Amino acid sequence: MPEKHTVAFLGLGHMGAPMAVNLVRAGHQVTGFDVVPAALEAARQRGVPTAGSAADAAAGADIVLTMFQTGQQVLDAYRGGNGQPGLLQAAAAGTMFLDCSTINVDEAREAAALAVQAGHRSVDAPVSGGVVGAEAGTLTFMVGGEAEDFQAVLPLLEAMGKRVVHCGAHGAGQAAKVCNNLILGVSMIAVSEAFVLGEQLGLSHQALFDVASAASGQCWALTTNCPVPGPVPGSPANRDYQPGFAGALMAKDLNLAVNALRSTNVAGRMGPLAAEIYGRFAAEGGAGRDFSAIITDIRNKSEQQALAAAGEASGRERAEGRRATTAHDDGSPE
Amino acid sequence: MPEKHTVAFLGLGHMGAPMAVNLVRAGHQVTGFDVVPAALEAARQRGVPTAGSAADAAAGADIVLTMFQTGQQVLDAYRGGNGQPGLLQAAAAGTMFLDCSTINVDEAREAAALAVQAGHRSVDAPVSGGVVGAEAGTLTFMVGGEAEDFQAVLPLLEAMGKRVVHCGAHGAGQAAKVCNNLILGVSMIAVSEAFVLGEQLGLSHQALFDVASAASGQCWALTTNCPVPGPVPGSPANRDYQPGFAGALMAKDLNLAVNALRSTNVAGRMGPLAAEIYGRFAAEGGAGRDFSAIITDIRNKSEQQALAAAGEASGRERAEGRRATTAHDDGSPE
Repeated sequence: MPEKHTVAFLGLGHMGAPMAVNLVRAGHQVTGFDVVPAALEAARQRGVPTAGSAADAAAGADIVLTMFQTGQQVLDAYRGGNGQPGLLQAAAAGTMFLDCSTINVDEAREAAALAVQAGHRSVDAPVSGGVVGAEAGTLTFMVGGEAEDFQAVLPLLEAMGKRVVHCGAHGAGQAAKVCNNLILGVSMIAVSEAFVLGEQLGLSHQALFDVASAASGQCWALTTNCPVPGPVPGSPANRDYQPGFAGALMAKDLNLAVNALRSTNVAGRMGPLAAEIYGRFAAEGGAGRDFSAIITDIRNKSEQQALAAAGEASGRERAEGRRATTAHDDGSPE
Repeated sequence: MPEKHTVAFLGLGHMGAPMAVNLVRAGHQVTGFDVVPAALEAARQRGVPTAGSAADAAAGADIVLTMFQTGQQVLDAYRGGNGQPGLLQAAAAGTMFLDCSTINVDEAREAAALAVQAGHRSVDAPVSGGVVGAEAGTLTFMVGGEAEDFQAVLPLLEAMGKRVVHCGAHGAGQAAKVCNNLILGVSMIAVSEAFVLGEQLGLSHQALFDVASAASGQCWALTTNCPVPGPVPGSPANRDYQPGFAGALMAKDLNLAVNALRSTNVAGRMGPLAAEIYGRFAAEGGAGRDFSAIITDIRNKSEQQALAAAGEASGRERAEGRRATTAHDDGSPE
């Protein structure tokens, strides 16, 4: 493969557009496409040449890069249908299919198998680092595929990220991401429960941070993305939980984790609980907030729980009062 | 207070004995006691002078240090009863009551209030670092109490540990420990679920470690106490899960976390789930293993789940086979 690639960049959303811009800057010959006209136009205005369809973009490319929301979208685009030619058919034989979407491991393997069967090469390379990392070119890529295919896409990925890890065979990139984010989602809830508990026990945020950050409670969710303002000035909690890593994306990734646990019969319990908690959080207004805002959810639910407990206690007192009165009435000589 | 203290050291178990030895080595005048004769004798043989009762040890001390299993034991010892004089009564006025046990925050506050009411001073200073840290004098102390009392016990604690943190008022040491260990217990389960999931997805331990340790899944449970052998050579997984930090102690600490969540009406869900998981783990043979052996528990339960799923699938096939046969029999012309 040549040093500079001809890249069809498909999916120019909040992540895809800045990634495509970085490829253009690095001297690659990029042709972008997005089914959303506004996204296509925005990318064009940022200097990304565009095509009239995904198939047109793929036709002249040696790399077809997809950055989609779901595995179904990836599979549909590869296969085509509804009168649209599939990318696998539109691309020249031996094209590299590089999927940077975050999707189910099973879907990633299916996509890779389809590409290989059609005479192409395939790599899954989901990213972490969010929109900020995409803009700055500091993403981490977790890559699954053949060693030589990894080497082939490495310069391209390094133009968009600062860390590229080969995790294993097809699907291993998705596997690494889903496992990492399972740990992350669970730890953020644990850290948040600990801070809310600390608040109720009269322990200052800084004191808990000082103890745990230098002890066995240390974790990225605490020491980099700290869910309370103060201890880590750069964390989203200091800017009213503007993401960062949005609650909707954490809910999506934990849903992928639950799918993976189910399909492999792994008896995980923390992952599914975290998926439930983030799913509800995203549905109840947290979708666009940083995932560390889960602490506000725990705080709110704790207040409700305290009120309910107080209500029960006062209800019990009233009931006992009534019983006492009744007993007195019953026993009164009148 | 003098630089060198006269210390009644009460509770000479696996943690207490080496802590007392370190105080003796640092030149403090220690008198130890334990209700278990064998523990008392073992400490004596390691060079800790001993007394005939806790009250005798406390009588001449300027610091009464307790290292017990439960808050009830601390409260009972302070108060006395059953013909035994309480420590609060046995000690000279103004004695420092330094409780290093890990107990409920409520109990720690009650113990402190009793000590202060009796004319004494009080500090709670639970530790982390385990038996290894106690032997090596590298414990972390999390301290709750008045600032001047913290300063007074600091040299003593520094003789037994390498990190001493003032966390706030009475009970704040216990609060910090329970919050830290809530994070720790939950993250270890999450890390273990991720490794077992990775195994089933064909992701090597080292690949997952390489990704997560340098990404947002990074946590002490992964990068210091890694639950699979290999990536972190010093972790208990490399010596068949010899503790380290025993499963029974993690179960105890998570139980304290649940008590604290309940008594403060904090709507935490990860903490209680972790308490349930570690409680069962400790009861089913994990009490004496390092808490990271929870991964073997998840692996076993996953195998059972896979077998059950396979059994259901084959049962369904058999049932469908029977229905097909029955249908044919019913429809046969004979």
